[in-house]
Amino acid sequence: MHIKPEIRILGIDDSSLHNERVMIVGALFRGGNWLDGVLRCEITRDGIDATDTIVSMVKQSKHFNQIRVLMLDGVTYAGFNIVDINAVYKRTDIPCIVVMRNYPDFERIHAALEHLPDTEMRWELIRRSGEIYRITVHEGENPIYIQHCGIDHNDAKEIVIMSAIHSNIPEPLRAAHLIATGIVCGESTGRA
Amino acid sequence: MHIKPEIRILGIDDSSLHNERVMIVGALFRGGNWLDGVLRCEITRDGIDATDTIVSMVKQSKHFNQIRVLMLDGVTYAGFNIVDINAVYKRTDIPCIVVMRNYPDFERIHAALEHLPDTEMRWELIRRSGEIYRITVHEGENPIYIQHCGIDHNDAKEIVIMSAIHSNIPEPLRAAHLIATGIVCGESTGRA
Repeated sequence: MHIKPEIRILGIDDSSLHNERVMIVGALFRGGNWLDGVLRCEITRDGIDATDTIVSMVKQSKHFNQIRVLMLDGVTYAGFNIVDINAVYKRTDIPCIVVMRNYPDFERIHAALEHLPDTEMRWELIRRSGEIYRITVHEGENPIYIQHCGIDHNDAKEIVIMSAIHSNIPEPLRAAHLIATGIVCGESTGRA
Repeated sequence: MHIKPEIRILGIDDSSLHNERVMIVGALFRGGNWLDGVLRCEITRDGIDATDTIVSMVKQSKHFNQIRVLMLDGVTYAGFNIVDINAVYKRTDIPCIVVMRNYPDFERIHAALEHLPDTEMRWELIRRSGEIYRITVHEGENPIYIQHCGIDHNDAKEIVIMSAIHSNIPEPLRAAHLIATGIVCGESTGRA
């Protein structure tokens, strides 16, 4: 894959759990530098509509044909509404990279899923989201963890490192987080 | 004024007029490059609460002490809810720069104000927002127009040009516009 410095990346994050309906924000970037558009949709807290809703948001965007990579902040959104990254890739034809600050605590996740309907289906989606790789974005800083689908590992790693300009988190995800929390809470919170 | 490349600038824009209450978004940037935070408040369509609400949003922010410049997209928000930039500067002690793509059509504005209560008060705020300067951001592109308060003209011009990296509009304002329209409409619209 030839990776241009201005590759279009859509970073997708959720806001905090204020309501039954949780806002999802897509921040469209050119590489790590340039905010080019903002998308918004809503999903249900602990629901099962994250995959369908994110696919619709992406496909309905006027930028759909330019987006080369989707970046997700983990695969559990709005509580335990799981994103099926294989389905997202299959239905949009856009590779997905999942970025996590920490290695997931699968024991805790499984225990939490037991309090929700569709426990096995959710667990299966989490397990199917693929191998988890530890990568160092900047020497001397904390590593992050990634999963991917529809893209070669070295390409995924290169895109993550190239777009993580101001911290160890790629800018499209850092901006999506600031926007989602800022809009819902009145002021953005945490992270970098 | 010594202008660092990472000077903290809060760009403030409104969203489209879907409701009586209109969302205002503040995009906090370091220079023209780095989104550092997002603020959100609401004002009333054609109301008179823009000045008070923006002052509160700025003063309540955890970033208040770092913000060196406020950038506004004109002085009429949410229809004809006028921002009194002299009052904003006086109450926050932060200089204001107003950026406009076109020279304001004062005849049209005055005619519109006549359909609203407090016509003279609104008109007075518009007239008091100061001299309008035409500036060329990038050679060969359309000029823009600025007003300012609490800051030397050359400093204001330098900050505008320095932060207008991807178009003739400073990035803090371009991002605030993308965020406000993207969140309210589902996808951001227009501009650069």
